[in-house]
Amino acid sequence: MALNVKIAGTGINLPGRVVTDTEMDARLQVRPGWVNKKTNVHTRHFIHQETASQMGARAAQKALEAAGLTFGQIDCLVCASATMEQPIPCTAALIQTAMGQEHSGVPAFDVNSTCLSFVTGLDVMSYMVHAGRYKRVLLVSTEVASKGLNWQQKESAALFGDGAAAVVIEQSAGEPSRLLHAAMQTYSSGARYSEIRGGGSALHASEYREAAEADYLFDMNGEAIFRMASRLLPDFLRGILEATGSRIGDYRLVIPHQGSAMAMRLLSRRLGISEEQLMYITPDRGNTIAASIPMGLHEAVRQGRIERGDRVLLLGTSAGFSLGGIDFVY
Amino acid sequence: MALNVKIAGTGINLPGRVVTDTEMDARLQVRPGWVNKKTNVHTRHFIHQETASQMGARAAQKALEAAGLTFGQIDCLVCASATMEQPIPCTAALIQTAMGQEHSGVPAFDVNSTCLSFVTGLDVMSYMVHAGRYKRVLLVSTEVASKGLNWQQKESAALFGDGAAAVVIEQSAGEPSRLLHAAMQTYSSGARYSEIRGGGSALHASEYREAAEADYLFDMNGEAIFRMASRLLPDFLRGILEATGSRIGDYRLVIPHQGSAMAMRLLSRRLGISEEQLMYITPDRGNTIAASIPMGLHEAVRQGRIERGDRVLLLGTSAGFSLGGIDFVY
Repeated sequence: MALNVKIAGTGINLPGRVVTDTEMDARLQVRPGWVNKKTNVHTRHFIHQETASQMGARAAQKALEAAGLTFGQIDCLVCASATMEQPIPCTAALIQTAMGQEHSGVPAFDVNSTCLSFVTGLDVMSYMVHAGRYKRVLLVSTEVASKGLNWQQKESAALFGDGAAAVVIEQSAGEPSRLLHAAMQTYSSGARYSEIRGGGSALHASEYREAAEADYLFDMNGEAIFRMASRLLPDFLRGILEATGSRIGDYRLVIPHQGSAMAMRLLSRRLGISEEQLMYITPDRGNTIAASIPMGLHEAVRQGRIERGDRVLLLGTSAGFSLGGIDFVY
Repeated sequence: MALNVKIAGTGINLPGRVVTDTEMDARLQVRPGWVNKKTNVHTRHFIHQETASQMGARAAQKALEAAGLTFGQIDCLVCASATMEQPIPCTAALIQTAMGQEHSGVPAFDVNSTCLSFVTGLDVMSYMVHAGRYKRVLLVSTEVASKGLNWQQKESAALFGDGAAAVVIEQSAGEPSRLLHAAMQTYSSGARYSEIRGGGSALHASEYREAAEADYLFDMNGEAIFRMASRLLPDFLRGILEATGSRIGDYRLVIPHQGSAMAMRLLSRRLGISEEQLMYITPDRGNTIAASIPMGLHEAVRQGRIERGDRVLLLGTSAGFSLGGIDFVY
């Protein structure tokens, strides 16, 4: 069933501090050029004074402007991120305050499927918009990766960046815009391949000891994830194509989660996505977790790589281990 | 628009360690009887060896049994909780593993609006079930409050308990079961009235110092929340009643978030909910955060206080500050 929804506007916010590959080489104590060669990330942004909710609010404001709307026309605010600003309350409530809308009453809650949070949020909220439960939803992904990196795990530390991206979803009215198909799968046999073990109820922040610092930082088995993605992604994509009777050539653009250079090569080689079809923003952003797909979408719109009526595929994997995709007409 | 959905089964799980009011008086170093008088919580359960995902898996299994279903008939698993087991991956993925379903591929993600997470999860997922995107959803709230309590804030520490509750949602087929109306409002002007500041990106777990322990524990301004709830709840409830042209007497049962004895009195006195209409499980559970409403629902079904065809209202407030309610035919 196609859903009568449209991405009315997009916006992003990048924190002020730019970290180059040269600076990252020095910080990781590797030879010059190592970071660039391993990750293809030339620059990423890290927060300096910014908070997740401030970045999210700025991206959301830009998305509102792009859609020609004001906050008063929004009736739901969803934060779809892997990282949270604080354990209580949810980040969406903090974004509401950061937008100066703390008396608005607009419902605010979070959706989390790690790197796929935006895809899950768009999937879920599209049903509410289609049904008219909410007229216009602000969907915001805002990620602070830099606080949770393990600098001993050089390959993963070199990969990530901070930033936020937001979209406004509304019903499409006499336009071609539609959500055609969405799919998600979770195989938690891979749950341990990328995780942060400490900081929740299993190993509480108040149990923190410096000797066990690594437990509170991001721990990734990149090879195991890559093997799992290689095994599962082709069938997952086939399922999406079959559901809508499509071929990969039907998409004007595929916007993948910017996981790693290796993951991007997997997409293009194994799945037959051409270079012109593949949105690739890793080199000057890094992996911004759940913000990476909506950031790719924003750049695609900004650069004119997609126009109203174009078929677009969002596609990615996440910790979980999950796969997610959304096939839509922009 | 009424949604064609039904709560097909409910289940709960309580951790093994029972903490009596007498034990709590001693731990809080207050005179005997203080905890009971202040909170009306006689016993609450705390985890000993259990994890959130184990409790959630057990509650989910019970809900499946109550619905006469097996996991193979479920096509989505949502964890709707305020507390997470670990920062990455989402708790739903860990519940999938704890159920022995790590190869199932069943999509797993989290929804979070603190104490209202279950209400938000039911609201959101009902649209997907109604539209047929998912046939049957396991919605699980599993909370470990005990790890985040600040024992210096005696009134809030005395109030909480750990535990899990789960429901299966499916389309109703020729039955009276319907979701009639759902509403949510967030006023983040009250975001600081109940919070845990540390443990997210704003104040990372790895920045933990014992001198600042309180920043990583639950901090509640009970009076400010009570004032805000008193001011906002009557209009919020009126909105729900007006949306369906109902009077409070039309509900067989109101299942509130078991926030505090004071909050329960507010409900009955200010909102005109009679004692027979009000589900009250605080005395032997405490406030189990997002698990408290589905736990109340489970007990209502078990005790025969609601039967198929009865009108039920879920109602609560949460950190955020948010209000939420769902009017449904069980």
